[in-house]
Amino acid sequence: MLPRTYDNQNCSIARTLELVGERWTMLVLREAFLGRRRFEEYAERLGIARNVLSARLAHLVDEGVLEKVRYQDRPERFEYRLTAKGRDLWPVLSALRHYGDCHYAPDGPPVLVTHRGCGGELDDRRICRRCGAPLELADVEAHPGPGALSAAAPARG
Amino acid sequence: MLPRTYDNQNCSIARTLELVGERWTMLVLREAFLGRRRFEEYAERLGIARNVLSARLAHLVDEGVLEKVRYQDRPERFEYRLTAKGRDLWPVLSALRHYGDCHYAPDGPPVLVTHRGCGGELDDRRICRRCGAPLELADVEAHPGPGALSAAAPARG
Repeated sequence: MLPRTYDNQNCSIARTLELVGERWTMLVLREAFLGRRRFEEYAERLGIARNVLSARLAHLVDEGVLEKVRYQDRPERFEYRLTAKGRDLWPVLSALRHYGDCHYAPDGPPVLVTHRGCGGELDDRRICRRCGAPLELADVEAHPGPGALSAAAPARG
Repeated sequence: MLPRTYDNQNCSIARTLELVGERWTMLVLREAFLGRRRFEEYAERLGIARNVLSARLAHLVDEGVLEKVRYQDRPERFEYRLTAKGRDLWPVLSALRHYGDCHYAPDGPPVLVTHRGCGGELDDRRICRRCGAPLELADVEAHPGPGALSAAAPARG
């Protein structure tokens, strides 16, 4: 039998991929890092089948990356919040974003992540290019970048 | 129609996932970063179906992450080498590894990545914990860590 999962891989990369490697999971987390919390927000932003979204959210709750919290009683409504274990994934998302910005963003980054208050951009070690501070998630904010509309816009020149 | 891929996501994270998000692709790259170059080495190390491995390698060559190089004429044999674009994925692998080490390695990291010559471990920004140098791929080496055998070993205590 050939393994169908990475379970036999004693490797931290493989273990993390078990958590976040499924299609859409990382994009659900991207939305969570941008502050979205509700099923309908994820569904609308991602254009993802609702049953797939349900499965991905349930998986992330099971793994302790998101927690499902009731925020309204009548009718009962829930939202999803990043846990500490979830917020620890920020360096992974940052690394993926930086790579895409370098290799797949000919019109510039779709999203700029900057040091809140300072305005400097993050480098690939999550250090502020302007002031040199090592940045944590709470220190940064996201803005539309020069490539924000490039996929929808007509070719330039 | 609901999208089946991330093609409509104007996002650097989504674009990078198009490249490396498929099951096994990142583990093929892990092996490449550890210096493996040959199809048989990948097949043996990963326990992956040969047709899947062929597809993943071809995809990475198409994307310019690996290059296929003939290293022997009679019989003709090829190996796969990381390109500059491939080596740029090192921060992504490092971030995945660091997360797994923190959350999925109860017996300690299976692999220790250290500053060559100095011996300090990398932190989650790829900075040497001992001397403070920002490290590049060429500056580091991998060793078996305390968790290297934990998956195969009997439970402790």
